[in-house]
Amino acid sequence: MVRRMTARPANAHQARLLRLLRDGGPNSRAQLGDQVELSRSRLAVEIDRLLETGLVVADGLAASRGGRRSHNIRLAPALRFLGVDIGATSVDVAVTNAELEVLGHLNQPMDVREGPVAVFEQVLAMAAKLRATGVAEGFDGAGIGVPGPVRFPEGVPVSPPIMPGWDGFPVREALSQELGCPVMVDNDVNIMALGEQHAGVARSVRDFLCIKIGTGIGCGIVVGGEVYRGTNGSAGDIGHIVVETDGRQCACGNRGCLEAYFGGAALAKDAEAAARDGRSGELAARLAEAGSLAATDVSAAAGAGDACAIDLIRAGGTRTGQVIAGLVSFFNPGLVVIGGGVTGLGHNLLAAIRTQVYRQSLPLATGNLPIVLGELGPVAGVTGAARLTSDHLFSPA
Amino acid sequence: MVRRMTARPANAHQARLLRLLRDGGPNSRAQLGDQVELSRSRLAVEIDRLLETGLVVADGLAASRGGRRSHNIRLAPALRFLGVDIGATSVDVAVTNAELEVLGHLNQPMDVREGPVAVFEQVLAMAAKLRATGVAEGFDGAGIGVPGPVRFPEGVPVSPPIMPGWDGFPVREALSQELGCPVMVDNDVNIMALGEQHAGVARSVRDFLCIKIGTGIGCGIVVGGEVYRGTNGSAGDIGHIVVETDGRQCACGNRGCLEAYFGGAALAKDAEAAARDGRSGELAARLAEAGSLAATDVSAAAGAGDACAIDLIRAGGTRTGQVIAGLVSFFNPGLVVIGGGVTGLGHNLLAAIRTQVYRQSLPLATGNLPIVLGELGPVAGVTGAARLTSDHLFSPA
Repeated sequence: MVRRMTARPANAHQARLLRLLRDGGPNSRAQLGDQVELSRSRLAVEIDRLLETGLVVADGLAASRGGRRSHNIRLAPALRFLGVDIGATSVDVAVTNAELEVLGHLNQPMDVREGPVAVFEQVLAMAAKLRATGVAEGFDGAGIGVPGPVRFPEGVPVSPPIMPGWDGFPVREALSQELGCPVMVDNDVNIMALGEQHAGVARSVRDFLCIKIGTGIGCGIVVGGEVYRGTNGSAGDIGHIVVETDGRQCACGNRGCLEAYFGGAALAKDAEAAARDGRSGELAARLAEAGSLAATDVSAAAGAGDACAIDLIRAGGTRTGQVIAGLVSFFNPGLVVIGGGVTGLGHNLLAAIRTQVYRQSLPLATGNLPIVLGELGPVAGVTGAARLTSDHLFSPA
Repeated sequence: MVRRMTARPANAHQARLLRLLRDGGPNSRAQLGDQVELSRSRLAVEIDRLLETGLVVADGLAASRGGRRSHNIRLAPALRFLGVDIGATSVDVAVTNAELEVLGHLNQPMDVREGPVAVFEQVLAMAAKLRATGVAEGFDGAGIGVPGPVRFPEGVPVSPPIMPGWDGFPVREALSQELGCPVMVDNDVNIMALGEQHAGVARSVRDFLCIKIGTGIGCGIVVGGEVYRGTNGSAGDIGHIVVETDGRQCACGNRGCLEAYFGGAALAKDAEAAARDGRSGELAARLAEAGSLAATDVSAAAGAGDACAIDLIRAGGTRTGQVIAGLVSFFNPGLVVIGGGVTGLGHNLLAAIRTQVYRQSLPLATGNLPIVLGELGPVAGVTGAARLTSDHLFSPA
């Protein structure tokens, strides 16, 4: 693909102006001036330079505030970001404008175990399909989330347990080549947290946890408004926190991990067992029809009033709540967001998690602590991925 | 006491110069210039202004680097900080110079439950005693650590479980009045982490955990070189993370908390039980002699080869290690420091903690993870307290 030579801001003031326009939309020079601590003349210089780069364009006259009318400016309407959210069993690809509004979004089943070459072939085909709809001619930046730890500065997955063939694969470099634009790579849970922070339930919260319950379970950690990734990029990997000493065998080789008890994979396994040993007629009927069960079947069975399905969800929520309770005591967040595929389990899950956290964590840490479902669903990850790459582009070169 | 009118730096450059002199000691203008990104003339202006405030003094000629010899400067030798580390059962008070070297240090038994008025009477008497030795005429700032959560911006303890009478007490305001200098208040575990970061085993580590095992158990969290305090100041309160569902009754009202199993208080209780029911002759003899047991008795008995005492330490270390293992998976720190009163339990404790963490945490998170005892012992808290107040004083006013 043709490389787009998107300009970068020359200094921190320009970067801040770009981010204000991204997060607040088109604005007048006067109102931007109120938000940045720059003299009027310096502000004019920086905006003029941004106009020269083409990152920003004039957008008509602003409403009068008494005195000379100020010119509106906005981010270039042609700017496009690609957001990619790779899960264990499906992939979301979306195109956003510079304000990170989703202009086109595709979701397809996919198996991350097929390895990076096959997966990125699919991702590129999906991106091409979106381009063909006319929402984008090319991309100014792309953000990719993968379901495993990432060495963030290099954009390389490291020892991802559920992603054979991905260890050390140069995702950033390879995709940057293919897409002809800068690429940022991060853990899928971190981009979900960024998405909920940008446009979802975590807007304006500085310190929060974002728990993603999909096939596995992970946690995005936001400290002072920034994603915290840890020393090796594995921070938030809570699926293998032990909830039961000498408990169930986990795929990781250890015993008693949270993921051995809950998450999409464990829930499907427990549901199939319940279907086979006669505890749930509803699940048995679904198993007979489909040959296998998924978390969505448990959700549907629970919705139909199946007591066994409801029990499975509650038990999983209680286990997850045990782990979150410890994290809340440790981290004292201002908000806990629950997201990911199994949020279709809805209020049974949320109730079980809340009960456990409010019972086990310190009262001081839970006093004003909301525990809520994410607002954005599958849009969270792709929005966060686009945000990640825009943060990079809207930084001094 | 006479209020000392200590100057504050006028801008961020001056603040940075003061911190460089604090952390690196006396230095030449030329070498300071290499470390800050200032033009030669601007550097000269900022240093001249600092010399005018009296925070910095000239200190002779530096060694030649070829060319004109540069003048050395240093922080004013008369600057004095007071560091106070209030534990559950004892208090440390120390005086440092501007480079945070301890010039005098007192430790006395104390009961935090006697409330803030009695405790601060004792602290002020100890500070007066130190002054009487000639190490300080007055103080330019004081830092205070208390064994409970603190609303950091206001310097007020909030709902501290083991500190009846302290809830909402205006520590910062009251002591600032008495001492005639600015006072900063923080959790005791945070000042321990700051101390180990400034002069101990955590020098140059950006993300680490500092576990303090004293009467209770807490954790200092350092993110990107800064203490993370959480939304209500209760971050790191890990003593009440549940390690056993429906387990032992804890003083907090919950069941199965870590502190119900380990920490100085739980260990003493377990040791007395072992002494009474004949499991340990060594502990029985000590109990008969003293009427009660403390963690130090278990340590001494273990040192004398008492198998029961060693078992108690190992069991406690294993429980603590369970909790730390989860935190390591979650936080992916670059270092874990173990400190506090029970570090006298030494290598039996450390071995049990390490075994559990290396067994339970993700390999990626433990691959390069040192788990070590703190270097500074009782000096960590007072050094960190002095560092806290120096960070405040060496910030733009």
